Amino acid sequence: MGNFRLTIAYDGSRYNGWQRLGGSAGGTIQGRLEGVLAQLCGHPVEIQGAGRTDAGVHARAQVASVALSGDFTPEEVAAYLNRYLPDDIAVTDCRRAAPRFHARLSAQGKRYLYRLWTGQAPDVFRRKYLTPWREPLELAPMEEAAGLLLGRHDFRSFCANRRTKKSTVRTLTRLDIQRLGEEVCLTFEGDGFLYHMVRILTGTLLEVGTGKRPPSSMPALLAARDRSQAGPTAPARGLILDEVFYPQEVLAL
Amino acid sequence: MGNFRLTIAYDGSRYNGWQRLGGSAGGTIQGRLEGVLAQLCGHPVEIQGAGRTDAGVHARAQVASVALSGDFTPEEVAAYLNRYLPDDIAVTDCRRAAPRFHARLSAQGKRYLYRLWTGQAPDVFRRKYLTPWREPLELAPMEEAAGLLLGRHDFRSFCANRRTKKSTVRTLTRLDIQRLGEEVCLTFEGDGFLYHMVRILTGTLLEVGTGKRPPSSMPALLAARDRSQAGPTAPARGLILDEVFYPQEVLAL
Repeated sequence: MGNFRLTIAYDGSRYNGWQRLGGSAGGTIQGRLEGVLAQLCGHPVEIQGAGRTDAGVHARAQVASVALSGDFTPEEVAAYLNRYLPDDIAVTDCRRAAPRFHARLSAQGKRYLYRLWTGQAPDVFRRKYLTPWREPLELAPMEEAAGLLLGRHDFRSFCANRRTKKSTVRTLTRLDIQRLGEEVCLTFEGDGFLYHMVRILTGTLLEVGTGKRPPSSMPALLAARDRSQAGPTAPARGLILDEVFYPQEVLAL
Repeated sequence: MGNFRLTIAYDGSRYNGWQRLGGSAGGTIQGRLEGVLAQLCGHPVEIQGAGRTDAGVHARAQVASVALSGDFTPEEVAAYLNRYLPDDIAVTDCRRAAPRFHARLSAQGKRYLYRLWTGQAPDVFRRKYLTPWREPLELAPMEEAAGLLLGRHDFRSFCANRRTKKSTVRTLTRLDIQRLGEEVCLTFEGDGFLYHMVRILTGTLLEVGTGKRPPSSMPALLAARDRSQAGPTAPARGLILDEVFYPQEVLAL
């Protein structure tokens, strides 16, 4: 009996996101993991993920917590999962965790990357992880807009769930835009992200980068608290959950 | 009317190799390219590839030549192909070529990479391009064996086509073995490669790296001219045609 912290990489292309839904457990990452863990333990198991990635979104290092009955070492849990999981989901790390550790509730922040491919010809080997982008992009105005989005704000304009009664205030601590050859990579770090927030921020910054929206309009857009004033939701394919951050004391056993 | 030189990248995972076969043109890279070019030109077109990669083998820069009727610019040909090809095949370059240019007959040499993944957990994002390898590998004896394979030899022991009456003499000009984190990459350069030659060389070097075969046995293995004395054929998945070399004068218009 013990609590475990798993680090999980997945190619989300063929899944209906992280979160298990009533009837389609096999089509979600959580459902696949729980299925293999139930087989290991001999009874149903519930696993908690740090981020509920959407359909088609990938993860380099999703974190999950799970309490398992039985006397398994972390190495046994990881080896069993990697043996029975499909080849687009992998456990890259598994450790014992304190009983109070909860992957989502204990998380302090997350990093997401949104990657665009601007080349004339597609990159066939990474085609599932990059969103093709063919319009000329000006990075300087995007960076200016990004600077105005940093900090603690009500991000309701960037939230796809229009009826939420929960707080939509979040702190964005990093929003970098880098060109790496034909790739353009947007890096987002913050204490939490609303439903579709990274993808709507990306869609809005792409409008800035193509001259459709001035960087100086960001404060008014935040103040509007109105999803319909922001840009489109960028496709899931280019988004990857890159890292989840925890306070040091939460990781201690 | 003109001759073109195309550079093509593909994820070979779901194809039955480069070469079109009677009934299954759609399942080969050559068949797919010819299908789109026929649509462009309005009549059947034949394209020649530099290397006939096997089923499941990838290419970063396969080269092909094709003579097209009609008045197309190289940009138009590339754009049309990239528009209608499936997303696991891409034309990364297209230029006019001299009428005498033939992708296979004009080639002077090729570079292939064979890549292994030795990590405990699979690399989910590159799972289709790396062969998993879990036994401990000693690189020093592999390098010693590689040194004995360099140069001009009869490679019949490393040829899967046992009945060929053609010469099996080839010159191997480079065989490097590098560890890059959890990846082990074998680089092969030579004037030509026999059927399955890179994969049988890899399978044999993996036997050397796991202590099943001494490096010093390479000269006798070459001299045997007997496929059954070499190691197994490594899986297609880890193999990629990385570059095709041409003499400068052949590339001139």
